[in-house]
Formats: sequence, structure tokens, C-alpha cells
Amino acid sequence: MPRYRLTVEYDGRPYVGWQAQANGRSVQQAIEEAILRFSGETVRIRGAGRTDAGVHAIGQVCHLDLARPFAAQKIREAMNAQLRPEPIAILEAEAVDEGFDARFSAAARHYLYRILDRRAPPALDLGRVWHVPRRLDTEAMHAAAQALVGKHDFTTFRASECQAQSPVKTLTAIAVSRQGDEVAVTVSARSFLHNQVRSMVGSLKKVGEGRWPVEAIGAALAARDRARCGPVAPPDGLYLVRVDYRSDAEQPVRDEDDEEA
Amino acid sequence: MPRYRLTVEYDGRPYVGWQAQANGRSVQQAIEEAILRFSGETVRIRGAGRTDAGVHAIGQVCHLDLARPFAAQKIREAMNAQLRPEPIAILEAEAVDEGFDARFSAAARHYLYRILDRRAPPALDLGRVWHVPRRLDTEAMHAAAQALVGKHDFTTFRASECQAQSPVKTLTAIAVSRQGDEVAVTVSARSFLHNQVRSMVGSLKKVGEGRWPVEAIGAALAARDRARCGPVAPPDGLYLVRVDYRSDAEQPVRDEDDEEA
Repeated sequence: MPRYRLTVEYDGRPYVGWQAQANGRSVQQAIEEAILRFSGETVRIRGAGRTDAGVHAIGQVCHLDLARPFAAQKIREAMNAQLRPEPIAILEAEAVDEGFDARFSAAARHYLYRILDRRAPPALDLGRVWHVPRRLDTEAMHAAAQALVGKHDFTTFRASECQAQSPVKTLTAIAVSRQGDEVAVTVSARSFLHNQVRSMVGSLKKVGEGRWPVEAIGAALAARDRARCGPVAPPDGLYLVRVDYRSDAEQPVRDEDDEEA
Repeated sequence: MPRYRLTVEYDGRPYVGWQAQANGRSVQQAIEEAILRFSGETVRIRGAGRTDAGVHAIGQVCHLDLARPFAAQKIREAMNAQLRPEPIAILEAEAVDEGFDARFSAAARHYLYRILDRRAPPALDLGRVWHVPRRLDTEAMHAAAQALVGKHDFTTFRASECQAQSPVKTLTAIAVSRQGDEVAVTVSARSFLHNQVRSMVGSLKKVGEGRWPVEAIGAALAARDRARCGPVAPPDGLYLVRVDYRSDAEQPVRDEDDEEA
């Protein structure tokens, strides 16, 4: 069966998350329904990142198999037509080798977390940024965040409901920067634990407010204790930006999974 | 009576426009209701730009008079609390001289028009950009736009319902630039005619598509003929970004008004 890779943008607000769940409509379900309407086929898609309720995507990746082959551009056009007026867009569609797996072949995932740190609440970006009404010290946040880079046991920054077999992950990069009234936290890793980004951002905000010293992040990590994590940041500011695949992605890598949400 | 100046951000989608109208809820009305709830006073505010239905603001300015004086910061905090959950935020509040008039004292207005020119429709920016599914030539658009700079009779780019006494306006600057899949058109003038920005952008899009030559914009302007205007761009992509006032704003300038919407 021909396999296709889709790059997907969505506004996470109206959905219970990426994955199909009993308690409401998921992004995955909306996409699968659109596939059914244009192709007549009931398929199950698999996404690279299982984003939680309210989390957004600029470049989520998923794959699907269709019994009947279609031109990739036709799939993109037909799906975008069928998805209207949902806030979900198929940015790209391409035919891929049957060994490609959006979730298990991913070599790197990149997330962005947006914080609006001004006194006034967001109007244009309501639900799409975390509003923190006091100015954050982004240099302190950036310095503190560097303690997270590398291969570590991230138990401190892992949701209690995380299903990953191991709490050990390798964070390849994290950066905190400012543009006007907005703070951007960008993070990259092969894969993440459930709520890992939001847990790290919630802790870094404590540093930005001056309530925690810069060293507190490394100390919290070393403690491997969930109780040492700051309050988890809300989903509003989180975006799955991009997923990278090796060019030799024929061999799925099943030893690392992604639980970020 | 103490007079206050407010800087306002809003998402224009849920409103019939800035100005109170019979056919639905306006931004002005939402703000006036918030003022009533916190101060007990029924006031009429005046905005610098009478944005149309669906048009957004990053930095609209309005003024109001209150019988009872309040600290400016208290006004901002109280109004933001009362406005929740409307997508309207008071960014700044300050006490001003009674000669200040948000509309008539304005020395310059700056608008931004955002176009998403990729094949896939917007998901994250639905209702906040104009989706044009083909790549636009921004260099041609920028070159064409320069014919509009200066003092001209803008009859071609003026809505038929425009109430301005004269079609002559002075455009101080217009620029077209690209960032990724997005085209930004920025325009500045002391004041604009009704639908002037959206009329100019709709015409420039024709140039960007290669359907009109670069010279067509200057020729359309010179014709002073509404029939020579391209299709008016939708409100979705338009933002009132900033309003400038002279430091010696005591004397209102009543000879120029703003009709942009």
C-alpha cells in the first residue's frame, strides 16, 4: 500500500489533543475523517508528537497508508478542502517509502514555547501564548536552561502519567530569547517525556521571575524528584515546530519514543 | 474632567468594527461597557482609527473623560479585568491634557497588512491573514507601491461609502516585504480614506500575481476612477499598528480625519 507523509499545522485550542480519546474530538480524528471523505478509506494515521489538549503545531508530521494511490499534491488539496473550516492545514504531502514511520523514524523534534510577559493580557494571541504579567529575566533563564542540555534522567520534568519506559532523554539544545514583549523558549531533542517541555518552561519561569536562582534548574534535574519541578506551564504557548528525519530513514528506530504533550 | 488615553490591542473577528453600530457588537461598545462596570460612568470614547468589521489592532488609541479621577494604572488593570474574556486588551493608560483628541490630534497612523501566500490555507492564523494560494512577487509589489507615496487624489482606492470630504491624502510610506510564507505590506499616513489600505493591497496583489504590470498602480491612481481599483482585500489581514501624536498635541488638528476601516 502506498504510504504518505503529511506535514500539518493546527491550532490546538478546539481539540482534546493530537491523539484520539474518548472525551472529545482530536486532531487525529479530524484528519482521519477528512481522509475518509476524500478517499473513501478508513485509515489510522500516526503522528510524530502526541501533543496534548490546547498544544499547537506549526510542523507536526504524520503518515498514512492508502489502498488506492493518489498524487501527493492531490492528497494535500483534497484534504485541505475537506478539513475546512477546522483550524488544521496540510502544508505538505509526499509519497514515502513504506519503512518510513512518522513517530519511530524521527531523528529530532523541535518545540517552541511562547511567553507574553507584559502587564496586559493577550488579545490577538489569546490561547496561543502563556501570559506572565511580570517581566522575565531571559538571560538568567537561558543560563539556567543550559544545565538541561545533554543526556539526563529527566524524572523531575516528567508528568506522573508519562508512559515512557525510561526517564533518560538527550536534550540537544535549549535557548531562551526575547523579542519585544515576548519570550521564546526553543528546545530540541530526539524525543521528549510527557509534559517535559512544559515542565522545564514552568521551572525556568521561576528563574525568570527571580524566585529561583540560576543554579536551581540543574539542582532540580539532579534531584530526579518530580516535587522539585516548578508549576507546569499551560499548553497555550507550546508549538511543535518541526520534526527531522534521517535521509536514510528506511529503518525505523523503535528504541526511542516521544511522549511530549 | 480628567481625560485618559488608552492604547488598545484587539482581535477584530467577533466585532462589527470599532464603531458602535446597530447591527451588532463593536469594540467601542465592549470597551465602554467595561468602563461602566468599573467606574459606574457611562462614557463615549473616541478612537484614532475606525477599523471595519474583522480588522485587528495592535495599537489602536482612544480617549475618554471620567468625572471621577483614577490612577491611570488602576484604569488599565480594572478595564482588563472587566474585559475578560473579550479579545480586547488595554496595553497602556495615561492621563492626558484635555486638549488631546485620539482621532483629531493624530499626526500619523501606521497599518500592517499580512498576506499568507502559500498553497495551504492558514490554520494558526485563520481570520488574521489574507490567504492567497499562489506565491506573490514582492519586489514587483514594492516597486509598484512607490507610485502611491506622496500627496494624491486617492479616489481610485476609496470605498464608495467613504465620508471624507476630500479624496486627497498624503501617503508618507509604503513597503512590501517577505518573511517566509508571509508578505507584509506596511503603510503610513496622517490619515486614510475608507478602505484605502485594503483597496491598495487588493490592487498590489494583482501586481504580485503578475496579472498587472508594475506601472498599473500609478496609472490606476492617476485615473482617479474607482473602477480601476483591484478587488478590495479582506479585513482579515489588516492591523492598526500604531498612532503617533505630536508632543505638542494640545491643539487638535481638525482638518484631517481618518476613515480607514
